[in-house]
Amino acid sequence: MSAKCVAIVGDLGESFGNYRIGDDEALLGRVTMANVACGFHGGDPRVMDQTVKSCIAHGVEIGAHPGYPDLVGFGRRAIEASEEEIRTDVLYQLGALSAFVNAHKGKISHIAPHGRMGSMATSDLMHARAVINAALAFDPSLVVICQRGHLEEEAQKNGMPVAMVFLGDRAYGDDGLPVSRTLPGSLLHDSDEIAERCVRVVKDGMIRSVTGKIVPLGHDVDTVLLHGDNSSVMPISEALCLALAEAGIQKVGVREVLARKSAS
Amino acid sequence: MSAKCVAIVGDLGESFGNYRIGDDEALLGRVTMANVACGFHGGDPRVMDQTVKSCIAHGVEIGAHPGYPDLVGFGRRAIEASEEEIRTDVLYQLGALSAFVNAHKGKISHIAPHGRMGSMATSDLMHARAVINAALAFDPSLVVICQRGHLEEEAQKNGMPVAMVFLGDRAYGDDGLPVSRTLPGSLLHDSDEIAERCVRVVKDGMIRSVTGKIVPLGHDVDTVLLHGDNSSVMPISEALCLALAEAGIQKVGVREVLARKSAS
Amino acid sequence: MSAKCVAIVGDLGESFGNYRIGDDEALLGRVTMANVACGFHGGDPRVMDQTVKSCIAHGVEIGAHPGYPDLVGFGRRAIEASEEEIRTDVLYQLGALSAFVNAHKGKISHIAPHGRMGSMATSDLMHARAVINAALAFDPSLVVICQRGHLEEEAQKNGMPVAMVFLGDRAYGDDGLPVSRTLPGSLLHDSDEIAERCVRVVKDGMIRSVTGKIVPLGHDVDTVLLHGDNSSVMPISEALCLALAEAGIQKVGVREVLARKSAS
Amino acid sequence: MSAKCVAIVGDLGESFGNYRIGDDEALLGRVTMANVACGFHGGDPRVMDQTVKSCIAHGVEIGAHPGYPDLVGFGRRAIEASEEEIRTDVLYQLGALSAFVNAHKGKISHIAPHGRMGSMATSDLMHARAVINAALAFDPSLVVICQRGHLEEEAQKNGMPVAMVFLGDRAYGDDGLPVSRTLPGSLLHDSDEIAERCVRVVKDGMIRSVTGKIVPLGHDVDTVLLHGDNSSVMPISEALCLALAEAGIQKVGVREVLARKSAS
Repeated sequence: MSAKCVAIVGDLGESFGNYRIGDDEALLGRVTMANVACGFHGGDPRVMDQTVKSCIAHGVEIGAHPGYPDLVGFGRRAIEASEEEIRTDVLYQLGALSAFVNAHKGKISHIAPHGRMGSMATSDLMHARAVINAALAFDPSLVVICQRGHLEEEAQKNGMPVAMVFLGDRAYGDDGLPVSRTLPGSLLHDSDEIAERCVRVVKDGMIRSVTGKIVPLGHDVDTVLLHGDNSSVMPISEALCLALAEAGIQKVGVREVLARKSAS
Repeated sequence: MSAKCVAIVGDLGESFGNYRIGDDEALLGRVTMANVACGFHGGDPRVMDQTVKSCIAHGVEIGAHPGYPDLVGFGRRAIEASEEEIRTDVLYQLGALSAFVNAHKGKISHIAPHGRMGSMATSDLMHARAVINAALAFDPSLVVICQRGHLEEEAQKNGMPVAMVFLGDRAYGDDGLPVSRTLPGSLLHDSDEIAERCVRVVKDGMIRSVTGKIVPLGHDVDTVLLHGDNSSVMPISEALCLALAEAGIQKVGVREVLARKSAS
Repeated sequence: MSAKCVAIVGDLGESFGNYRIGDDEALLGRVTMANVACGFHGGDPRVMDQTVKSCIAHGVEIGAHPGYPDLVGFGRRAIEASEEEIRTDVLYQLGALSAFVNAHKGKISHIAPHGRMGSMATSDLMHARAVINAALAFDPSLVVICQRGHLEEEAQKNGMPVAMVFLGDRAYGDDGLPVSRTLPGSLLHDSDEIAERCVRVVKDGMIRSVTGKIVPLGHDVDTVLLHGDNSSVMPISEALCLALAEAGIQKVGVREVLARKSAS
Repeated sequence: MSAKCVAIVGDLGESFGNYRIGDDEALLGRVTMANVACGFHGGDPRVMDQTVKSCIAHGVEIGAHPGYPDLVGFGRRAIEASEEEIRTDVLYQLGALSAFVNAHKGKISHIAPHGRMGSMATSDLMHARAVINAALAFDPSLVVICQRGHLEEEAQKNGMPVAMVFLGDRAYGDDGLPVSRTLPGSLLHDSDEIAERCVRVVKDGMIRSVTGKIVPLGHDVDTVLLHGDNSSVMPISEALCLALAEAGIQKVGVREVLARKSAS
């Protein structure tokens, strides 16, 4: 069996116009993949162009991070949209991002729906179908970043590559699923604790839940997500990189993670 | 010399959400090329998907019709944007449209900036450079739809194919340029008069100006534009098709027009 | 007991920029109250200014018609907003409309949340509280246009005047509530049938439900709503006005309806 | 003659959704007036509600800060709008803000158009007329915050109270007008230098221009503006408050400044 490896993914490019969110340049030195906002929940054409350029300069894989068309809500409020509305909104965003990626001679490697669209795609079959149908129409070789649920199932059913994500700075329940971000304590801030959790779950698939039990996550961890708007993201990402190195876990891109899995 | 031919282009896909503009299905039977709105001045992802699908079903060439990000102004108000803002806004729109075109196995054949962005690209070098640089980054083989001016010059300087457009339903001045749409009488409505003007200018390059003089247009007419929001667009397009047929002028796509010119 | 009377209310001012919806000028001759869009689901500052001016010229009472901030969805998709988000969105829209009403020396007489925000305010207590708290902060004497449900209860609990509305062009169930607009047949188009239904329900409170039974509506009918985007709205409104006149039911403003009720 | 006094005004409430700009709470302890964004170039209904509440808690006068409808450009790009478009956009924003101010039992005391709309209202008669006509329709007793130019003239011609503003952190030319913010060095950052300039111009009306000359400003200074998005705004405002106190210049609201002037 090959040495353990994992991808690290960050949400990037969520600034808008005169408004800045996150320290993208600093985070780019730590992650191996970026989920790039596409202008609906965050991001604008200048931010997208600059973010794509920086990802390529840092050798970071670029993924689309489509969200609901709700800038004021930052994509964190579900919209009662039809399957057709979600599918076409996602396809529009994939295309818009691709223009910048192509202009910089790169390639969109993956898709990870943002915020509430992401959680709806996990829990709701219609959302999952809409996202997967948009992704298939765009490029069936896109890696789909998933938690356990409908998005994962629809991606697999349609033969798309799937990478399972662990939310590095989020508390998990006994069921191996992240607890709602509206609950107190759902967002972790202690960088050493987070780094240790991530290493453990990559190595043996176990996590300490909010109730204090050590429980199985129930799936591989192909990539660990760090939220750029967690105010502690820089110390967290530093501690994580150190801890992974100490544990002998290589930090690679997600396509490399999947290639090694299929080879092993 | 080969038989005369001309393309007919219409602005399509400018509806938005619950709001309808134009009778796209009817116009699709008359035009050979469509300028498709990309969601900034008009159009939304559902309208774009449907418009692209209809264009392909009718064998109509698809072009991008990017505009200023100003839905309430329908792209008819200049925005004091920087070259970088215009370039990235256009690139974003090209990419967004391409996702729908690719999903329907089509290809974007041309670009025609909409409304005030179009007139600014004609009269202002910075706008022209921004549009051409976006188009070059997207696909240098796009045909650029131009009037005489900076956009035409920048396209030619950069080796992009150029198609010269005649605004079929607009009054022209003695200088061979359309008069401002804010002037009374600038928009023509008499379908027979418009059809006759178009045939004449395609055949011998002459037009009757607002002052009543017969003056040279000063450039080839590769394509005639009909505005979808001219309330008379259906009788105009019908009269035009009949008049072209009577005059033995073939109605073809713009790539065919350019191919015949270069072959002749 | 005083003679029967009823208000007739129409949704107006839903055009946006270059996009037109409804024939507001024609409808203004028929209704006694207008629900005026406030720029979130439809309407823009020019449309609002013109609509308010026309209402005042026609002696039509002006009400606020606040919606979700979702122009592309025309306010017909629920957004998972917090109570605070809904309250402040409604208050913002009330204020925006009031500037035009004050400028034309008028007064906002009522509030009727639009589309999905309206149905959510009927069925969901949090939405109802948010709308009522915004209305209270703006002007506690506003008449609240309600169907049976939480909005009605919250309005009454807070001492606001309530007017009960009957949706003139919608099918109702055996429970005296309108059936979902997503069901086939939920929107009625036969103007004579609609006029007859309206007269009957105003006179004796009974309606023929979708199952064919004659059932009680279960509440007074203070105002009958006509949807401006029902393509048959002009013949419907004409038939309704004639039928009301024949039945000796006076068409008055909603404040007059409420005043007569409290006096009787 | 009464003791010298001056108002200090800050641009507040320009955050939007998840995006934060400026440290409003800190600045509120220093200023006597706030220009509050109204949702077009910045601000949203939650931010407006909170900002208004904080202003009232701090005894800070509330003014409307309407801008072009251009969130992505932060209102810093001129839009080729008609007089009617500008007038109704400003009136809409005045009304929206008033709903929050009224809900908190406050009053809008002044109007100061934001960014490029502000500079256009200074230099362009049509913009000035549009802003003043909106303000007149809303409340003719609003104080209009002006630099020398058309806005000042139109306000005076229409009998509105005028307060002349000095841009505390901006370089001025020999003509007593601020130099373009696009020029290098146009934005000052040295807090002591800025404080000293402000005290001097309040006392004797003279400033050191970009060419090093001491020139007359050419008008009274009723209020000094600090830009909340100047990264040095906190040390600047602290230095300014100290310097004013040392010079015996009282920091008061703008209505107090104007009342003392008319009484002297």
